[in-house]
Amino acid sequence: MVSMGAESTVTPWEVSGKVDYEKLIKEFGTKKITPELKKKIGRLAKDSHSLIDQEIYFSHRDLDVALADFESGKGIFLYTGRGPSGPMHIGHIIPLVFTKWLQDKFKCNLYIEITDDEKFMLKKENKMDEIRRIADENILDIIAVGFDPERTFIFKDSEYMGNMYPLATRVAKSINFSDVKATFGFENSTNIGMIFFPTLEILPTMFENKRCLIPAAIDQDPFFRLQRDIAESLGYKKAAQIYSKFLPPLSGTDGKMSSSMPESAIYLSDEPKTVKQKIMKYAFSGGQESIEMHRKLGGNPDIDVAFQWLKYFFEPDAKKLKRIEEEYRSGKLLTGELKTILVEKLNAFLEEHRERRTDAREMVTTFMRTGALAKKMWATKHE
Amino acid sequence: MVSMGAESTVTPWEVSGKVDYEKLIKEFGTKKITPELKKKIGRLAKDSHSLIDQEIYFSHRDLDVALADFESGKGIFLYTGRGPSGPMHIGHIIPLVFTKWLQDKFKCNLYIEITDDEKFMLKKENKMDEIRRIADENILDIIAVGFDPERTFIFKDSEYMGNMYPLATRVAKSINFSDVKATFGFENSTNIGMIFFPTLEILPTMFENKRCLIPAAIDQDPFFRLQRDIAESLGYKKAAQIYSKFLPPLSGTDGKMSSSMPESAIYLSDEPKTVKQKIMKYAFSGGQESIEMHRKLGGNPDIDVAFQWLKYFFEPDAKKLKRIEEEYRSGKLLTGELKTILVEKLNAFLEEHRERRTDAREMVTTFMRTGALAKKMWATKHE
Repeated sequence: MVSMGAESTVTPWEVSGKVDYEKLIKEFGTKKITPELKKKIGRLAKDSHSLIDQEIYFSHRDLDVALADFESGKGIFLYTGRGPSGPMHIGHIIPLVFTKWLQDKFKCNLYIEITDDEKFMLKKENKMDEIRRIADENILDIIAVGFDPERTFIFKDSEYMGNMYPLATRVAKSINFSDVKATFGFENSTNIGMIFFPTLEILPTMFENKRCLIPAAIDQDPFFRLQRDIAESLGYKKAAQIYSKFLPPLSGTDGKMSSSMPESAIYLSDEPKTVKQKIMKYAFSGGQESIEMHRKLGGNPDIDVAFQWLKYFFEPDAKKLKRIEEEYRSGKLLTGELKTILVEKLNAFLEEHRERRTDAREMVTTFMRTGALAKKMWATKHE
Repeated sequence: MVSMGAESTVTPWEVSGKVDYEKLIKEFGTKKITPELKKKIGRLAKDSHSLIDQEIYFSHRDLDVALADFESGKGIFLYTGRGPSGPMHIGHIIPLVFTKWLQDKFKCNLYIEITDDEKFMLKKENKMDEIRRIADENILDIIAVGFDPERTFIFKDSEYMGNMYPLATRVAKSINFSDVKATFGFENSTNIGMIFFPTLEILPTMFENKRCLIPAAIDQDPFFRLQRDIAESLGYKKAAQIYSKFLPPLSGTDGKMSSSMPESAIYLSDEPKTVKQKIMKYAFSGGQESIEMHRKLGGNPDIDVAFQWLKYFFEPDAKKLKRIEEEYRSGKLLTGELKTILVEKLNAFLEEHRERRTDAREMVTTFMRTGALAKKMWATKHE
């Protein structure tokens, strides 16, 4: 757990307060993505991505090594996951959109772990049936992102454990209670399923004997630090990570979006009208109290959630974004106008997503069972 | 862990010192098998067994309830296991012989769990390949006991985990680190695989929604106390246990036979000559120092391992056993003569065992995959 004084907390299960990303890099011991590294990504991907350009993906471990492995022909693979705790919101889908970009550009395999086991075991009140229903819904949203069906394997832990368990015993044997206590703040009252679970979050990094690259929000780092401690002794490679900042919740630029506060998030299922209402009503504004004041003093885009969302993802054109920023700061662009820009972008994105989601249903079997990679994985016993 | 003053320790992993079984019953909170219960077993089994008659199986939890379930037609099933840490000795096979008797008499299903995962994770130096090789050898010895191939399912955790994991998450969610710390003495340095493992030892008690009866040595009780704490909240029945004393090692009537001291045990693979040598040389004797003294003072069968082994298992005829005891106590029977009786019994048992073991190889697939029960189990996902 990284505690930032009294104001802020970042763990895999909690992000609250004003996040100081520079401090986080120091405390976690990760590296900044330098301008040189940015260029290298662009050169190898033969493309750029606004999430990199805008430094939303800002930190890493061994990303340079992963790129070198790609360049030399050794190859890499991608791994990400989803804990099916509830319906997915915008903050969940953006990293997946970026992961799809990485897969497209680097033409590599991708493993998506659905940690239904962890979500069931995490809270006393969580019911297995409900978690499964959520998992199935989430999988449709994930498939809608448009991954390569022959190079992507989506699996639920509860279903795929049989293929993973022998390797899981090797991973688990390398980690003791002190390790998970220190890393995750587990206590004596933590159930033994949760204590075992980090094994399974680490395990997909060993699905291939290539370097695994993990796109994730930086709060997931503790899991992967453990991986990096033990991987080589088990005959596998240390996983590389590319870490993002948190998409701010509507309520303000502190913490991250939470499923437990519906008004702080835009869900993938939110209707256009709902999106408009939420943004207009809840999106924290950097504007002034009256139009007159705003025209005179201008707005502050740095604390304005609508602007931050545009910057984070929804306005990938850097020039347009710059113009919006300047006009807002000068007072030319009003809060309502700024919010309207976001609402339109959001609704266009969500409409497209929902169309693809409708088609996703018939792709489930391909991604989970019969696609080239899925088929190979079901025939593999990891050891 | 039950510590008996400074002299003795009984845990699932260690039995040392002089075991006071009366005290153990009190400390563990199990019950004695009363003469009435003995009679009831005989009446329902329509047979008797010397291991019951001689009170080697001496204690229980809910055995009376299990027998009532059998009698009323609700039915019961049996569960036992084997941790494949090394070659099997006489102390391992006797409980299985008794289990076979129970299966024959009560015509019920039997599940035999091979905990290759636990044995691999228990010790740093244990290699997975070696544990598997041992497991395969052990399975031949188990099959040689003669279980009903259509009513018995033998499985390795490493192979069957896929079918167990959903239920395992429910079991694991009900147990926390404090529980396993208190029950097994786990520490912060215990690896997270071992911490999770009690889940899998408990799980087969929930393979059917009937009462499970577990024949075991009494040191296994901690596992099943945990089972009894959580079973009903998960919709299953509290398992019943029938507990045995420990077959004394050759070295004396303290502790139990250990695979790590080859001279303290008779292995199932020991040649007739080896058996004779070991018994003659190592079996702790209750006889006197010289023949003259022995004739005069007589021997003490209570501390004589050869006599104890005859009593425990190898002389099931109570009258013959009584005569041997009296003649030994009186000095009429010499130590060498007593040992010769045991050697003959042992070698006859082992010869028969080895013959059946040769035939066992072609039964492995039946017990593990294709037999009626095995087939059904592979088609079952436990939840």
